[in-house]
Amino acid sequence: MLMDAAGYRESLRAYQPRVFVGGQRVESVADEKLLLPGINGIGVTYDLAHDEAYQPIMTAVQGSSGKTVNRMLHIDASSSDLLGKLEAVRLVCKISGCAQRYLTHDAFNGILQATIRADANHGTDYTQRFLAYMHRIQDEDLTCGVAMTDAKGDRSLRPGMQANRDSYVHIKERRPDGIVIRGTKAIVTGAPYVHEFLVMPCRTHAKGDEDFALCCGVPCDAEGITIVARPAGRPGDPAAKFSAKYGQSTGAVMFDDVFVPWDRVFMAGETEEAGYLTTSYATHHRHSCIAARAGFGDLLIGAGALIVEANGLDADRHSHVREQLVELITITESFFACGVAASVYCSKDASGVAMPDAVFANIGKLLLATKIYDMHRIAHYVSGGLIVALPGPDEDHNPETAASLAAVLTGRPDIPYEQRAEVARFIEDLTVSKEAGWYSVISLHGGGSPEAMKREIWRNYPVMEKVALVESLLDRGVLADGSRVSKQPGRCCVTGCEVPERVTTQEAAE
Amino acid sequence: MLMDAAGYRESLRAYQPRVFVGGQRVESVADEKLLLPGINGIGVTYDLAHDEAYQPIMTAVQGSSGKTVNRMLHIDASSSDLLGKLEAVRLVCKISGCAQRYLTHDAFNGILQATIRADANHGTDYTQRFLAYMHRIQDEDLTCGVAMTDAKGDRSLRPGMQANRDSYVHIKERRPDGIVIRGTKAIVTGAPYVHEFLVMPCRTHAKGDEDFALCCGVPCDAEGITIVARPAGRPGDPAAKFSAKYGQSTGAVMFDDVFVPWDRVFMAGETEEAGYLTTSYATHHRHSCIAARAGFGDLLIGAGALIVEANGLDADRHSHVREQLVELITITESFFACGVAASVYCSKDASGVAMPDAVFANIGKLLLATKIYDMHRIAHYVSGGLIVALPGPDEDHNPETAASLAAVLTGRPDIPYEQRAEVARFIEDLTVSKEAGWYSVISLHGGGSPEAMKREIWRNYPVMEKVALVESLLDRGVLADGSRVSKQPGRCCVTGCEVPERVTTQEAAE
Amino acid sequence: MLMDAAGYRESLRAYQPRVFVGGQRVESVADEKLLLPGINGIGVTYDLAHDEAYQPIMTAVQGSSGKTVNRMLHIDASSSDLLGKLEAVRLVCKISGCAQRYLTHDAFNGILQATIRADANHGTDYTQRFLAYMHRIQDEDLTCGVAMTDAKGDRSLRPGMQANRDSYVHIKERRPDGIVIRGTKAIVTGAPYVHEFLVMPCRTHAKGDEDFALCCGVPCDAEGITIVARPAGRPGDPAAKFSAKYGQSTGAVMFDDVFVPWDRVFMAGETEEAGYLTTSYATHHRHSCIAARAGFGDLLIGAGALIVEANGLDADRHSHVREQLVELITITESFFACGVAASVYCSKDASGVAMPDAVFANIGKLLLATKIYDMHRIAHYVSGGLIVALPGPDEDHNPETAASLAAVLTGRPDIPYEQRAEVARFIEDLTVSKEAGWYSVISLHGGGSPEAMKREIWRNYPVMEKVALVESLLDRGVLADGSRVSKQPGRCCVTGCEVPERVTTQEAAE
Amino acid sequence: MLMDAAGYRESLRAYQPRVFVGGQRVESVADEKLLLPGINGIGVTYDLAHDEAYQPIMTAVQGSSGKTVNRMLHIDASSSDLLGKLEAVRLVCKISGCAQRYLTHDAFNGILQATIRADANHGTDYTQRFLAYMHRIQDEDLTCGVAMTDAKGDRSLRPGMQANRDSYVHIKERRPDGIVIRGTKAIVTGAPYVHEFLVMPCRTHAKGDEDFALCCGVPCDAEGITIVARPAGRPGDPAAKFSAKYGQSTGAVMFDDVFVPWDRVFMAGETEEAGYLTTSYATHHRHSCIAARAGFGDLLIGAGALIVEANGLDADRHSHVREQLVELITITESFFACGVAASVYCSKDASGVAMPDAVFANIGKLLLATKIYDMHRIAHYVSGGLIVALPGPDEDHNPETAASLAAVLTGRPDIPYEQRAEVARFIEDLTVSKEAGWYSVISLHGGGSPEAMKREIWRNYPVMEKVALVESLLDRGVLADGSRVSKQPGRCCVTGCEVPERVTTQEAAE
Repeated sequence: MLMDAAGYRESLRAYQPRVFVGGQRVESVADEKLLLPGINGIGVTYDLAHDEAYQPIMTAVQGSSGKTVNRMLHIDASSSDLLGKLEAVRLVCKISGCAQRYLTHDAFNGILQATIRADANHGTDYTQRFLAYMHRIQDEDLTCGVAMTDAKGDRSLRPGMQANRDSYVHIKERRPDGIVIRGTKAIVTGAPYVHEFLVMPCRTHAKGDEDFALCCGVPCDAEGITIVARPAGRPGDPAAKFSAKYGQSTGAVMFDDVFVPWDRVFMAGETEEAGYLTTSYATHHRHSCIAARAGFGDLLIGAGALIVEANGLDADRHSHVREQLVELITITESFFACGVAASVYCSKDASGVAMPDAVFANIGKLLLATKIYDMHRIAHYVSGGLIVALPGPDEDHNPETAASLAAVLTGRPDIPYEQRAEVARFIEDLTVSKEAGWYSVISLHGGGSPEAMKREIWRNYPVMEKVALVESLLDRGVLADGSRVSKQPGRCCVTGCEVPERVTTQEAAE
Repeated sequence: MLMDAAGYRESLRAYQPRVFVGGQRVESVADEKLLLPGINGIGVTYDLAHDEAYQPIMTAVQGSSGKTVNRMLHIDASSSDLLGKLEAVRLVCKISGCAQRYLTHDAFNGILQATIRADANHGTDYTQRFLAYMHRIQDEDLTCGVAMTDAKGDRSLRPGMQANRDSYVHIKERRPDGIVIRGTKAIVTGAPYVHEFLVMPCRTHAKGDEDFALCCGVPCDAEGITIVARPAGRPGDPAAKFSAKYGQSTGAVMFDDVFVPWDRVFMAGETEEAGYLTTSYATHHRHSCIAARAGFGDLLIGAGALIVEANGLDADRHSHVREQLVELITITESFFACGVAASVYCSKDASGVAMPDAVFANIGKLLLATKIYDMHRIAHYVSGGLIVALPGPDEDHNPETAASLAAVLTGRPDIPYEQRAEVARFIEDLTVSKEAGWYSVISLHGGGSPEAMKREIWRNYPVMEKVALVESLLDRGVLADGSRVSKQPGRCCVTGCEVPERVTTQEAAE
Repeated sequence: MLMDAAGYRESLRAYQPRVFVGGQRVESVADEKLLLPGINGIGVTYDLAHDEAYQPIMTAVQGSSGKTVNRMLHIDASSSDLLGKLEAVRLVCKISGCAQRYLTHDAFNGILQATIRADANHGTDYTQRFLAYMHRIQDEDLTCGVAMTDAKGDRSLRPGMQANRDSYVHIKERRPDGIVIRGTKAIVTGAPYVHEFLVMPCRTHAKGDEDFALCCGVPCDAEGITIVARPAGRPGDPAAKFSAKYGQSTGAVMFDDVFVPWDRVFMAGETEEAGYLTTSYATHHRHSCIAARAGFGDLLIGAGALIVEANGLDADRHSHVREQLVELITITESFFACGVAASVYCSKDASGVAMPDAVFANIGKLLLATKIYDMHRIAHYVSGGLIVALPGPDEDHNPETAASLAAVLTGRPDIPYEQRAEVARFIEDLTVSKEAGWYSVISLHGGGSPEAMKREIWRNYPVMEKVALVESLLDRGVLADGSRVSKQPGRCCVTGCEVPERVTTQEAAE
Repeated sequence: MLMDAAGYRESLRAYQPRVFVGGQRVESVADEKLLLPGINGIGVTYDLAHDEAYQPIMTAVQGSSGKTVNRMLHIDASSSDLLGKLEAVRLVCKISGCAQRYLTHDAFNGILQATIRADANHGTDYTQRFLAYMHRIQDEDLTCGVAMTDAKGDRSLRPGMQANRDSYVHIKERRPDGIVIRGTKAIVTGAPYVHEFLVMPCRTHAKGDEDFALCCGVPCDAEGITIVARPAGRPGDPAAKFSAKYGQSTGAVMFDDVFVPWDRVFMAGETEEAGYLTTSYATHHRHSCIAARAGFGDLLIGAGALIVEANGLDADRHSHVREQLVELITITESFFACGVAASVYCSKDASGVAMPDAVFANIGKLLLATKIYDMHRIAHYVSGGLIVALPGPDEDHNPETAASLAAVLTGRPDIPYEQRAEVARFIEDLTVSKEAGWYSVISLHGGGSPEAMKREIWRNYPVMEKVALVESLLDRGVLADGSRVSKQPGRCCVTGCEVPERVTTQEAAE
């Protein structure tokens, strides 16, 4: 039974999480004005699934259950699924700025890959626990927050060596009926208005850190959980037509001896598979981020074209403006293309989950992370200084000045001042406001820092294939000793593609 | 008599400007909390001039009067003066973010160049009027706002063709004792807390637009003036330690039939010289902007080094962090270097004013305008996600959460959480807040758009010298007809340098 | 019957083209040393089609004939075909540098789209003529040169207005049995060693230029054709192990009253459809160029990794080297990703030809065109100065110096000097030599200049969709008048995708 | 007595160096065609010193002798001297591509700084030896090659640990009358046609590597020296009007037990001061490189403007072409500006030598090193494909094709084909040829790799000043413990400037 946005908001009343926003305790999340834009953002993912035109994108059939679920909760089984997810995320984010809920998807896919691997290696039954859990979430159409980024404390020390063990969420106690966990997750997207938290490890662990190799599902109002959140968007701000409606909250989530029964525990000490979970989640998530920021690009492109028009310019004739818009398009679509390529060249492990190609997914994320600043620059370039020089909304109603200002600030006779101001404020909202700055940082660091992307690109790229290619062109007998090829697994960039490139193998065989 | 910051603030009480901020009338500018950060910013230029250590930078001897004046009011007569101005502006801006008052300097230098030219061409006596005015401002140590950017209306039409003539400030009436002006200036830096406005043209004018070729000085509280301003900085915001103290207001200034006596009129109809005024002011101003944003670079570099340390990293050992800081330094110092070169290769016209080289000044401004976005990117890169994930100051005093959060968010044991949070919020203030976004746009468009810089670079660059060089290397008889060299004035890039490069002339003579 | 490389070379003996290289008449193309590297390059496309491992990539079934053909001659009918072509081109180019023959493919697909459109509009029978011609080329497994870029003459004048009409190839005479054409094509890839030329228009034409709206197939040795070509690669150069073997010749082709019978004429005066041919060919070709330069990227990545090793460095440990290699990978794979996305989001017109998405194809080509310079920079960065400081091959055999130099220029004990020198010279060959410079320029301008890409991106991008999105978020009643949406056809970026994004339509309907 | 170019060439006959070019022994350097372009390049520095118009730039008065010397041999004593050197180098390089001789200057200044420091620390008399040597070189107006970059061998080992000690030039034996040196220097600019070699260390040395801390002057034909060189430019190549005339050779120089008397030895075991020599030479040299590549920029700007014209375009009207030329100007002048700033903010140590500011000098070098690739890109962009599509010079005289090709390849009626072709080939010579590629690599790695620049920028930048600034703005009591300021010497970026910025000290005192 798929909920709609109103139903989702109502469903939050069934939970009593302990939430602070701006230092104040929130009585009712569903009614808290400071959180409403965030709830609206997630709401978009619910409403569109009911719209006939969007259903092919917004819903999908879950293979393990045969049921139709919201795509934000779906396990991908093919390139088409990955393309579908990519387009669905772009869709909901171009309407809402950031619809947040795709993180549930990313976690579900990553966890399933990891539990199947853990069960195979350790004879555990995590997969069946997780599938039961996931099917329930899908059936009830809930939203899970991803509680992954730990507070970290002293970064030069492993989790187990921290003076304050609470810097990382960990298993404090193992009991017959479940585990007791404690510690703080520092950045949880949508924390105050999700139904459940998926607790996940944010790094690889070594021997001795078993208590930190932890994955489980916890209701948002489980005893011992405290959520310290920032407001979502710019609720109530008259200058912010867009982000007064849609926004995103993040919160720190403190687990103070929270009990989790075993049927909600999906990893508890398997350090290697927990590391794999971190990586596979990251790959799914970076792939989703690409689509999310492409949606942001859509907003900027549209707004850019509108402000150019309102300023009385014409991109067809004024080449320096067109040049900028083309650069904005080029940035947006070139990182989106990496998401498409990651879908096409996906791979599958024993879990049957279609995993986006890590090289393309990380490149796309790296590009968006660093180029969002260029996107801001271009938006400002085409907007002119007006977006910050414009008097604020308060002045719109000042009887002593409003009319005179409106008269001289009209850019062209057929577009009223109000319309020009509205677009200018929309761009300010997207690129100048604190929320805009915040999105930049989240684009840069969310899902891992640029440095992390670069490491993943390097780790996954078939460099030795290219080395073998050059050596064969130099007539070197690489295959005689064979050591070269084995240095790095000769993984093909195009695994899973319908038109596999079998070059490497061939070169090896020649 | 040089005022100090307290004296400057007190001096504002002598004026009664009609100011609106956020739609509300301001009773007393000197007491208005929403404007105080802006007043503090300008105050830095006053206080430092009293500090013995800074006096060589912050004061200078005015050639036409022999008096020691604040460098923000000084007429430059040499490369050293230009370097002195450059360093003074960097100094006051690295303390205040933007000390605003250098605009008075830029206008003074531009106006003097233009009045001398106008007097020579038209037999007017603008120079003597202007010098008398300027000497009084210098003696009283006042601050002038530059009222230049008109509201512009329909950009496809000349000022004289506008449906609403008030889109540009213009002479409505010429009377025996003075002129009556009206119209709106859209973006005036520091508008609510300057002593006087220097009204200046923002574009070149053609025949028929004589009424718009206007320059004059008007007290801020002259009858008929209304100022609609935005708050300066983030007054009262606990998250903004820096911009709660220092900020910048800009305002729209409406002139509703304001009378200006002749001795305050410095241009009134001389379209060609008014165009020259626009350009020469722009060159001085872009040169100053370079120093101002280098000061911003200083703040970011220092803050970047501090946050890296507080996060427990070490730029000497972690090369990816060092790489970023070096890029930040490279950006900052390479555009500053253009300011230095513009000073060294300055030129002088008949006015005796040392004019920064237009090519270097425009290149420096173009670089800072487009690269401030990269500066933000780098600051975010080295900061990590903490700068936006950190709970706000409200949480610092929440007894139910503050202690736990502080415990896990401490990065290294010897740096308390409060100190880490303080630096993180400082960087947020500089690069994430609305004020940060606002500075980006002002950096991009203030003093003219990137497109305007590019046109000036092209217009002023000695391209034909380079063409002649290549032709001589190709053994072409360029000098036979001589037409090449005359296509564009053979202006040397290094005029005024103590070691003049006389290559071009030479090549011509060969 | 698919030829192999030896068969292809032999087949050239059946033709007697009039070819000049370096000012000298070539007696036998198949035996001309200066052309051999070019013949070898094309030969790769023949040989790989016989290799079982590569056959799925290198061959395809032609829909209109049911026969298996070389993929370089195939008409694409699906996304899979386009992906197949993309991978095939990358494959042959990473072995040969540039295998040239994909231009035949690009022309075939573009021509078929245009003839079907022309026949529909004008009742002509071009399609049947062209299919007959194409099937023969496929059956005989020939290679066609694309004679497209005219000499152009005075660029400010239309073809028909040129003082010298021969600046563009045109129909001089229409006869009952065929046409007589004349004029010069300035840059024809592989000109001296192709079997036939496909003459195509290089620009759109207006009324009055019907004689220039010309497409036909001509044997390379038709009476009246003269080919003035540059050598292919660096034949015989001991420093150039790679480009002594593989290279590319281009030539100017002069048509001096060449007769073409009607059954080889595929367009003769239909200006609109000829313009469409230019554009559709360009889109296919830019898509192919992406793959070709990705193959060049493969070579650089492999060579970069080898030289780093030979210099005694380790990319895993030396982060500044790894950083560069990751950037090289990022550049290569991000433009390749645009090719993948163009394949996925292809469209089909009435011809049934699968057309790569123009936005993605042009973005990919634009990126490779401008970033090949960065690729050179990175290759040089990781190589160190050695690649140019190394003594040349002549010194290798100088008994008085060779041994001493080899002794001190060995980078690490387990890699002999010869091996280090060989890799260094390979990189020099790819990035320093004249051929390397030549590839840069061809990458920038081949298939159209960057300006042309930008125009195509702008022309094809669904900007109005994004405008409609923003307007709907601003609650504007766009649909009331409907004019907005019709300003530009609401073409969806994802047409043809299995998961169509129907957002725009929907937004319009709301 | 200053020589002219002819005199310099003649003077080479007095030496009998053992030179190999292309594996062949050179009989007479002065008559060797393969070296002539290099000799011509250096010749420019001689000839211009005799030209009255250039004498203020090309000559200077040596402080220690009172004599007028060529500026390429001068010790700088002021900012003006550094600006003079900068302009002189730009001048000679914009005529010759690279005049090479400024390396003598760079070495002289670096050595003098180091000998004075060594004498002060160790009581040696190197300075007096060096001054005597330098005065002689100045008086005889000779040119010295800088033999600095060692062959290096295994880069992971210190010089003293190399299996083959000859990988670094070192002192093999210390005798009463002098030292015996041996080993190989791998890249020596101008090696075959300089009068003397200045042997210098290329890295810092630790205890135990005293034999490698070596600086001395050796005649080019000293017993035991062998030079293995590459040809200079493209001698005799008809396509290369420019680099057939001017070019640059580099060579490996092998020292096979070469005896050097003590009066020519300027450092022999002082590891610390030898390290200082390496650094101070590098700073002078990087400063010179800035000017050299600005001269290259001049050539490209001029050639770019000419080819645009010959193609029938107009940069004033075609904005996409102007945009590119403005970018080329911006690149060139912004790195040149760093050279100017390094001159203005120079420093002096006890030697009295004016040392360019290391931060600005390294930033300028870093920018030119990485942006020369963009310069090539822009040159290609504005040239169009013609520069590589044009038939070669051989075709110009082919009676069967030349006239027809010339007719259709004329771009605009008033510029003959020959003139268009000539400019196109000039740009090919500068940016496409092997020499062009070679200049790229040398720009990137000459004077140290980009990584070396970045380390120097970081090492020299007053980061702690910026930290102190931010801490004072955060009201932190930095001075209480004082440790911060002392972490890194509070060296001011503007030392030596006439308008010193004393901010840091002040802030510390507040």
